Amino acid sequence: MSVFAAARQRAAHYANRNPLFAKLNKTHLEYFNCVLREQCPKNKKPGRMLTDPNKIVSFNRDWMNQVEGECPVVLLPTSTQQVAAILRYCQSEKIGIVPQCGNTGLVYGSSALHDEVILSLREMNGDPVVSPQTMSTEAEAGVILQQLQEAAKTHDLLVPITMGSKGSAQIGGAVSTNAGGIHFARYGSMHANVLGLEVVTAQGEVLDMMSTLRKDNAGYDMKHLFIGSEGTLGVVTRVSLKLYPFPRSTQLALFRLTTFESVLELYRLAQEHLSECLSAFEVVDGESLSVTPQEELPFTRTSKSDTFRAGQDFTSAYFCVMVETNGSNAEHDMEKLSRFVEAAECNPRCVSKGDLGESFEPVLSQSLAQTAQLWNLREDTPVRLASAGTIYIFDVSFPLDKFYDIVLHFRKMIYKNGGFDPDEVLVVGYGHFGDGNIHLNVVDRTRKHSDALDAVLFPAVYEFCAAHSGSISAEHGVGVQKKAYLGFSRKPEVIALMRTLKRTMDPNGILNPYKVID
Amino acid sequence: MSVFAAARQRAAHYANRNPLFAKLNKTHLEYFNCVLREQCPKNKKPGRMLTDPNKIVSFNRDWMNQVEGECPVVLLPTSTQQVAAILRYCQSEKIGIVPQCGNTGLVYGSSALHDEVILSLREMNGDPVVSPQTMSTEAEAGVILQQLQEAAKTHDLLVPITMGSKGSAQIGGAVSTNAGGIHFARYGSMHANVLGLEVVTAQGEVLDMMSTLRKDNAGYDMKHLFIGSEGTLGVVTRVSLKLYPFPRSTQLALFRLTTFESVLELYRLAQEHLSECLSAFEVVDGESLSVTPQEELPFTRTSKSDTFRAGQDFTSAYFCVMVETNGSNAEHDMEKLSRFVEAAECNPRCVSKGDLGESFEPVLSQSLAQTAQLWNLREDTPVRLASAGTIYIFDVSFPLDKFYDIVLHFRKMIYKNGGFDPDEVLVVGYGHFGDGNIHLNVVDRTRKHSDALDAVLFPAVYEFCAAHSGSISAEHGVGVQKKAYLGFSRKPEVIALMRTLKRTMDPNGILNPYKVID
Repeated sequence: MSVFAAARQRAAHYANRNPLFAKLNKTHLEYFNCVLREQCPKNKKPGRMLTDPNKIVSFNRDWMNQVEGECPVVLLPTSTQQVAAILRYCQSEKIGIVPQCGNTGLVYGSSALHDEVILSLREMNGDPVVSPQTMSTEAEAGVILQQLQEAAKTHDLLVPITMGSKGSAQIGGAVSTNAGGIHFARYGSMHANVLGLEVVTAQGEVLDMMSTLRKDNAGYDMKHLFIGSEGTLGVVTRVSLKLYPFPRSTQLALFRLTTFESVLELYRLAQEHLSECLSAFEVVDGESLSVTPQEELPFTRTSKSDTFRAGQDFTSAYFCVMVETNGSNAEHDMEKLSRFVEAAECNPRCVSKGDLGESFEPVLSQSLAQTAQLWNLREDTPVRLASAGTIYIFDVSFPLDKFYDIVLHFRKMIYKNGGFDPDEVLVVGYGHFGDGNIHLNVVDRTRKHSDALDAVLFPAVYEFCAAHSGSISAEHGVGVQKKAYLGFSRKPEVIALMRTLKRTMDPNGILNPYKVID
Repeated sequence: MSVFAAARQRAAHYANRNPLFAKLNKTHLEYFNCVLREQCPKNKKPGRMLTDPNKIVSFNRDWMNQVEGECPVVLLPTSTQQVAAILRYCQSEKIGIVPQCGNTGLVYGSSALHDEVILSLREMNGDPVVSPQTMSTEAEAGVILQQLQEAAKTHDLLVPITMGSKGSAQIGGAVSTNAGGIHFARYGSMHANVLGLEVVTAQGEVLDMMSTLRKDNAGYDMKHLFIGSEGTLGVVTRVSLKLYPFPRSTQLALFRLTTFESVLELYRLAQEHLSECLSAFEVVDGESLSVTPQEELPFTRTSKSDTFRAGQDFTSAYFCVMVETNGSNAEHDMEKLSRFVEAAECNPRCVSKGDLGESFEPVLSQSLAQTAQLWNLREDTPVRLASAGTIYIFDVSFPLDKFYDIVLHFRKMIYKNGGFDPDEVLVVGYGHFGDGNIHLNVVDRTRKHSDALDAVLFPAVYEFCAAHSGSISAEHGVGVQKKAYLGFSRKPEVIALMRTLKRTMDPNGILNPYKVID
């Protein structure tokens, strides 16, 4: 079975097209075309509609190339009023519609599954407005995260979110999915950083909740309903975001530790010594880096160090830990970091020399270029793993002390119980340790084992989360991929409330159908 | 007219009792009594019911003694199951019910207005659980904020919220009202810090959303619906909160500046020099301190310095600014603070010597005791003002540069246009400058001018907010007091969505009736 078919099968009962949805006809297309061309503010270019299958193909595929929809038409509005008219029409005509920003999600949340219309926000991407006075920015949904970061930087301000996909991900999608990333532990979630939103509801109403005020308790704070609801309750069209002083000093230290217990101890020391300066604490296990060429590594890898240690419950030979600080005073930050590194080196529980006979001296970045290079190690990891074969990406979270258990458990299930060859199937873990957020990746380098791996992984991974106080989705959301498993992370009464809201706000279920809940 | 009558009149159309609500009868009381005594876990004492008017009187009055309800019975449950049974029953019998925690709110949000039953959470106050591993705490709704802070402190951890009322305010109420306080600018709102909630809905369903996970994107994040909705959508019974490393170093500097422009400049310097250490930036104008005895002030007050400067648009003679830092390294924090103070003293835009001929040297706290004493200056301000006469407290927010305009405007309206005597009516402003959150207080020292002041202030204060990009409620919420004015801060489509949610989740409108929206 192809991965695509398997993915669809896993979400089996969502694969059926909603029979109440209209089939697109010429009248529909004429209406869309008319709205996009005519409901256009004077200072903007008109919206566009794509019907050429060659131009639609990239909108129809998810980032991992695992799901391909049959969307026949992509709408590219340039104004909120166009979005509102389109959604009003789709609600009354019962046309399924999928909002899409950068399409970098990993749970098929912005994919059409059948013949839904795709509503791409990518052309709503005017220059973001940055206000140093209010330390905030206002941007349209289609603004690329990196573009927003650069705009803020010109005013010496920092956007509190960044992640590997920053060059493609768009801010509307990042807000709609409550995207996390590497600075989450320092600056918090989108719920902590979004000051205002403009949203078009599934019924085509514009909710203007834009604001740059820090405190505003005038009634229910409705914007939170749209943060993280993955475009199923409304389409985010504009965002106002908190900004922070751009750090004058960024320091990075890379450690190689031989046991998970040492990682835990290092984290405790980081909290103690770095505290308000700590901006990232990322962990990548040795096996994750087995697909990274030696020349990109800041240490010499022995062949032995790529594989977990035999006879030790499949534990990793080593863990790479990246500790970043952000601060306003380079001298203070370097002093804090030095004391932290010293404390780690003196701490017998924080073993930095391993049983491979190598020296595991921490690497302290000496320049911005080196910092960027070291970050590439981490950020390229998912991309390299995805190119190494057919990839299963599980984004889950646990209490810190249980962070790595899921990797050990599934190595046992796959190698020992399942009899798979470690050279053919990689089972690796990396992620945002400070948030308890691990990405368990299983890579089938042969691209042949889908059926057998499916049987081992589904729903076992989610059962494992439920049994170990974890979440089935830390930062990627639910989309299609995890919809059937929501019950592993949410109580029935809570799911019932989600369903009530969805049905109340989107009576015909037209907005991002088959995703999250219906 | 009494202030009570005036307050009720301002909320005129909410003063009518909902005719659909049942009148309490013996059967109802028997049911409540039975639930409280019998639905009780083994390890807890049973709940209680109060019907003696003498024991009910304090539950029936708001903190400012402005509203007095006619609640005939107070329920004091000790378990979530009791709360659920009570709400199920109230929904089916159409009995209005008001959840109440510390009853320290300032918008009559936890007051009964007619004969509603009061559901006090104060006996759901078991010892909070603090987990250093997950850096979080779990507590029942009735736990007093200060008690929670002390429990966290024993593990060297900090609760990210504190405020003047910490000795009475309870955590369930603080979450339900999205309480702010002095550390909001550093640690963010309740939306940023609540990790999990247990809520009983208006229909008596228990929503178990308790969690200590930092990242959890498994479906809509329903807890945000109950944060800040002031107990109108559900009753918060249990809370899980993020904790932070307890700062090893707390520094405090007190400035006296002569112009508002200097305050703005000082804030810019604080962002630049203190950045990640800055934990509070509070402003109190000179008139606010006119009711503070000289012996409690860290500077000598001339009689002239109590009143605004003549001929200068009623601007204040001076502003007290309290700048606090929290950090992990005392030496670094003191160095940052010294450089900041130095920069302020050298900055010609940051005038620290005034036209009163006094020396306005900044005061740097030399001990924890002095820090506490200086904080009392700020925290006692609202209490002293409230005892000085009949008080009108307006909690509003603005973009930073417009922070103080509302005080100047209403001095003009009251003194110049209204002809009131500054010795009889105080018009003062103080608040959380870093959040743009000012408390405009008008104090009628004669207690005679209610009608005339009402005419000047309502709805003019809220109109002023709307016209100057402000919010009618920064941190106090809406309650009864601001319900009629919601339209000054929220668009009609957003209010319509709030109403839809309220009606969907509380079909008979029994939960905290007449508050926020109906």
